[in-house]
Amino acid sequence: MPGSTFGTLFRITTFGESHGPAVGVIVDGATPGVPLEEADVQRELDRRKPGQSSITTPRAEPDTVHIMSGVFEGKTTGTPIHMILYNKDADPSAYDAIKDRFRPGHADFTYLRKYGIRDHRGSGRASGRETAGRVAGGAVAHAMLKRRGARVVGYTLSVGGLAGWQVDLDVIEQNPVRAADVPAAAAMQKKIEEARGQGDSVGGVVECQALGVPPGLGDPVFDKLDADLAKAVMSIGAVKGVEFGAGFRAAHMMGSEHNDEMSAEGFLTNNAGGIIGGISTGQPIVLRVAVKPASSISMEQRTVDIDGNEVTIRTEGRHDPCICPRVVPVVEAMVAITLEDHFKRQAAMHG
Amino acid sequence: MPGSTFGTLFRITTFGESHGPAVGVIVDGATPGVPLEEADVQRELDRRKPGQSSITTPRAEPDTVHIMSGVFEGKTTGTPIHMILYNKDADPSAYDAIKDRFRPGHADFTYLRKYGIRDHRGSGRASGRETAGRVAGGAVAHAMLKRRGARVVGYTLSVGGLAGWQVDLDVIEQNPVRAADVPAAAAMQKKIEEARGQGDSVGGVVECQALGVPPGLGDPVFDKLDADLAKAVMSIGAVKGVEFGAGFRAAHMMGSEHNDEMSAEGFLTNNAGGIIGGISTGQPIVLRVAVKPASSISMEQRTVDIDGNEVTIRTEGRHDPCICPRVVPVVEAMVAITLEDHFKRQAAMHG
Amino acid sequence: MPGSTFGTLFRITTFGESHGPAVGVIVDGATPGVPLEEADVQRELDRRKPGQSSITTPRAEPDTVHIMSGVFEGKTTGTPIHMILYNKDADPSAYDAIKDRFRPGHADFTYLRKYGIRDHRGSGRASGRETAGRVAGGAVAHAMLKRRGARVVGYTLSVGGLAGWQVDLDVIEQNPVRAADVPAAAAMQKKIEEARGQGDSVGGVVECQALGVPPGLGDPVFDKLDADLAKAVMSIGAVKGVEFGAGFRAAHMMGSEHNDEMSAEGFLTNNAGGIIGGISTGQPIVLRVAVKPASSISMEQRTVDIDGNEVTIRTEGRHDPCICPRVVPVVEAMVAITLEDHFKRQAAMHG
Amino acid sequence: MPGSTFGTLFRITTFGESHGPAVGVIVDGATPGVPLEEADVQRELDRRKPGQSSITTPRAEPDTVHIMSGVFEGKTTGTPIHMILYNKDADPSAYDAIKDRFRPGHADFTYLRKYGIRDHRGSGRASGRETAGRVAGGAVAHAMLKRRGARVVGYTLSVGGLAGWQVDLDVIEQNPVRAADVPAAAAMQKKIEEARGQGDSVGGVVECQALGVPPGLGDPVFDKLDADLAKAVMSIGAVKGVEFGAGFRAAHMMGSEHNDEMSAEGFLTNNAGGIIGGISTGQPIVLRVAVKPASSISMEQRTVDIDGNEVTIRTEGRHDPCICPRVVPVVEAMVAITLEDHFKRQAAMHG
Repeated sequence: MPGSTFGTLFRITTFGESHGPAVGVIVDGATPGVPLEEADVQRELDRRKPGQSSITTPRAEPDTVHIMSGVFEGKTTGTPIHMILYNKDADPSAYDAIKDRFRPGHADFTYLRKYGIRDHRGSGRASGRETAGRVAGGAVAHAMLKRRGARVVGYTLSVGGLAGWQVDLDVIEQNPVRAADVPAAAAMQKKIEEARGQGDSVGGVVECQALGVPPGLGDPVFDKLDADLAKAVMSIGAVKGVEFGAGFRAAHMMGSEHNDEMSAEGFLTNNAGGIIGGISTGQPIVLRVAVKPASSISMEQRTVDIDGNEVTIRTEGRHDPCICPRVVPVVEAMVAITLEDHFKRQAAMHG
Repeated sequence: MPGSTFGTLFRITTFGESHGPAVGVIVDGATPGVPLEEADVQRELDRRKPGQSSITTPRAEPDTVHIMSGVFEGKTTGTPIHMILYNKDADPSAYDAIKDRFRPGHADFTYLRKYGIRDHRGSGRASGRETAGRVAGGAVAHAMLKRRGARVVGYTLSVGGLAGWQVDLDVIEQNPVRAADVPAAAAMQKKIEEARGQGDSVGGVVECQALGVPPGLGDPVFDKLDADLAKAVMSIGAVKGVEFGAGFRAAHMMGSEHNDEMSAEGFLTNNAGGIIGGISTGQPIVLRVAVKPASSISMEQRTVDIDGNEVTIRTEGRHDPCICPRVVPVVEAMVAITLEDHFKRQAAMHG
Repeated sequence: MPGSTFGTLFRITTFGESHGPAVGVIVDGATPGVPLEEADVQRELDRRKPGQSSITTPRAEPDTVHIMSGVFEGKTTGTPIHMILYNKDADPSAYDAIKDRFRPGHADFTYLRKYGIRDHRGSGRASGRETAGRVAGGAVAHAMLKRRGARVVGYTLSVGGLAGWQVDLDVIEQNPVRAADVPAAAAMQKKIEEARGQGDSVGGVVECQALGVPPGLGDPVFDKLDADLAKAVMSIGAVKGVEFGAGFRAAHMMGSEHNDEMSAEGFLTNNAGGIIGGISTGQPIVLRVAVKPASSISMEQRTVDIDGNEVTIRTEGRHDPCICPRVVPVVEAMVAITLEDHFKRQAAMHG
Repeated sequence: MPGSTFGTLFRITTFGESHGPAVGVIVDGATPGVPLEEADVQRELDRRKPGQSSITTPRAEPDTVHIMSGVFEGKTTGTPIHMILYNKDADPSAYDAIKDRFRPGHADFTYLRKYGIRDHRGSGRASGRETAGRVAGGAVAHAMLKRRGARVVGYTLSVGGLAGWQVDLDVIEQNPVRAADVPAAAAMQKKIEEARGQGDSVGGVVECQALGVPPGLGDPVFDKLDADLAKAVMSIGAVKGVEFGAGFRAAHMMGSEHNDEMSAEGFLTNNAGGIIGGISTGQPIVLRVAVKPASSISMEQRTVDIDGNEVTIRTEGRHDPCICPRVVPVVEAMVAITLEDHFKRQAAMHG
């Protein structure tokens, strides 16, 4: 079954390879009559694009979006919204030297084993560039959620084990790490620069909150809201884990500690992370994802070539030493798409 | 969109409430001609059923399965396999006293807010009893995987923070905790009994391995194998987090540590947990889930009733002080179903 | 991909073989809070069941429905509704003599070629008995539509070329043919009895109207209302064609004849059959299906056995000489399910 | 639920409005490693494009296709194939005068009622131009089928009641009507030219055969091959009916006439149209669709405006007097996509 479509009632289908002519998305299921302009989409894309700060890859892609359908006189029409970004700084020849070697941590080996053929130019479909389509689709979801009074905010919670002590949603866009804690942001940035200096990369944790989500979203028993959100964010290339609320800490807790008691004012705690029984509680939805260190490093590593010969490799080129800052808008996009989908699912249930 | 169906090519649809007449499942998409008997399914159900040991709920359900269709003369026919388990020890009146109070940690509040109506008898559809259908469906998946040379094994890795030091797959079924480490199993069991003695419950971590899975399973970019597995296990009631391979530890690592290098003999490490770029590598697939402490505890807790009045509640009755031992076969079932689905998806891609 | 699920937001999954232990259905996606009793379902099943008149098969199945889940205190809860009908008059041994011969017109040959294995007892899954699950699911859809002010009515329009001259919806249930024209009903009944007397069978046309459907249902460009209805009714075993409004007559018409002009009171004609551009117009939806003559006849026919040897066969046993009267509630069920699904889809679009 | 995606394992998602910047498609699920070039797609698009003969609309669209992804070094990679056609001869101002009047037979009224907003420029999404994406997607399916030894051939069977007496697949592309009978083609062409001379349009029947399809395709009980094919072709704008094999004639027949008997050489007749029990028999699949007369005519017709006032309208502009010749490749595309999907489904069942 092809895997490039996500969502049921609000649905995105992405396409495109890193060094082909274009990447993009079709958004199907947008509510008709909602104001939407290219600028709304561009704003989100600019947060994901390469070259936006000193700690991201210098690949020079403007990532300019073109809306090709589904919007008429500044409003969605309910028909598919096609958005395309032409690749401007493709440089496929840079990959010729390593096209027959499996880069450690990359999907070179698995793509070849799966498909029997591989577009080796800059990871092809497995490139992080694929997420541009997600972010464009997410921008449409953000526009829909705004009308509902809901919003999604992500930030880098830790880098290489360095975490902050507070969460201030107002400072996120003021530092290149996209941390929600100013002093920690500086430390994280230093850590990232050190990694880059060593030709290495470093992992981190991205946290995401959804605010203004009413109780009732999620479809037990399989399409629980947390199950669908888990799939949504786990489908992002570098994510290796996801947890909600207390998450893995819950495994260490007693029921009397973990259960969220209630008063007349509502829940007294939010260990559940805003979802109980797979359905939103009305509290903030809180999830965290583990982001692995970027696979592309310029240190020498052992690997094999497509004939099975042992070789070494250095992945020279234009890389991100830590992808957390650019993963933030991707996580937000996937969370927003999932929420908009479940808003519509809940409308259908009672509609 | 209704949420009681899981899978695409190998698909289960479950039904049933905790204290209604029956629970069960329809499995659609089974390969025709595969030997399958009720005993194959019963064996798995017996590992999930209540009352199997001193540390599980004493509810007395034999959970006897009846295959109603899709099997002819001991073999699958390719048509839907319907399996039903009649509820024998339902005791709905036990819940009358608390039917108007939201039990902390339970889905009482969210179900009522979602549906506007709630079958309050023993959590209704939100009961862990719903997982019997999953395990029955999983048994069919296990039978399919066996023919492919693959198998799925789960175990309790830790309880309340107590973990073992080794993983011995042969000892799992020899201790009631389903731990893969004998000394740790004893400590975990003691921890669980203490919790029960206090009228409390305790959380834990369940780890699951899939062995014998070839490279190539998983459908980028959204239906990655880890994304679908994450959804599969996050849809289990008490699961609050999932991670693959190094998982959340990856967030603390450098690329040079995390990348799995290769030699002529294959991968040198398995930090990826058997999945790279959303596609299986051929190494063991390793995932862990965080299991929250069971919500039903007999300690007094604060909550509200359906009119918003503050009240207290004790959830008396027949409960599990730690659900990890019974979650193990459910995790295995969901992993097996997901893998069988992706085996078929890969066959379709090249078919 | 398994094919026993139909619908997206209102969805049925059926199971069961003709001579196995049971047949039935899971309905997922029912609006919560809607009154539903077994009697509502039984009433529809009684219209489909065998032995209801002198011109249907004498197989003695009470087709008693049991609701196993999803209904609580007389109302739907929004969780899956499982309904089961135990087979009482199964007589698999009657089929032993012909189990190795492909009955002309039946799916014996194609099932064996598709699955490589076949439950030969009374057509197994390919039996018309499978439609009991559809009718049970349709009864839930009818209950949902009733709340919306919509209803679906089917009738036998012609048998063996004999058609009526008028459509009187009030007389349908008063004659065993389920015709909407009393004098024609008598002629059709005579035709059917003649066919039976000859050991033969006869085809017919069933027409179905959906009344009270508002404008706006249907999802271009692929899930148009007529496209989904066409699939719904074409999936019924004996149906070989479907048309809407003027249907195949439209192929003979000029645009100036076929176009439905409008006045301030609405459309002046309904050549479109209530659907334009794949979306309901608010006029009655009118569709017709071609029902082939039942394949089981007791006249001698040429065929081959599973080894390819030429043989002859007579399909003795309990058969319907014309299945139109029993197809009527099945067509109604499939139309109702499709409409309820699209009501929910439209709610989702604007929800 | 959004409706712009068709298929399960081989799947197309189309986008685009008649007078927007572009139309196109994403094909997901193509078998990797299959040779595919833009020329393969262009050849099919040229058969659908406007202005190809004296009896089609003179809109001057080259319909040049650009493949944006999913093909690498002349072969499919298994990743999504995005194809785009930029609109060159859009002339939206031509529609300003009638933007507030509902054109009879068109989807103006229903789109507005469904979405509450409408792109009125040349029917917007409801335009026949949308089918360019289908034909591009169909070209990929044709390439896949060719490898399997199967092919799909369509032709105009009748126009305004004028039919031919024979079917010669070799003459179809030699006459502008795409009829399979040379003398009839001339008569049909004359009929079409007369309609155009009167400012009117005329309907017809398109027949389609699939050759080389083995037994075993189709997924009972709902995703029967004929059910999915019926949906596929009914989703084409102007189609008002579909039938298989004997089709509506079956309703007039006796079982002894209609049943296809078998000999050692195979089936003796093909009244079933190549599908029994929803599964292909291995004989040619034969289906026919009723194509309504094009809705755009320049004769004066009664209608209302969006405020409900009675007005008249003439649909001046660039129209097809009979769309059968251009529907042929669209029917072929939808049939090919459905077949390729079911080939993959059958591979999955046994894979």
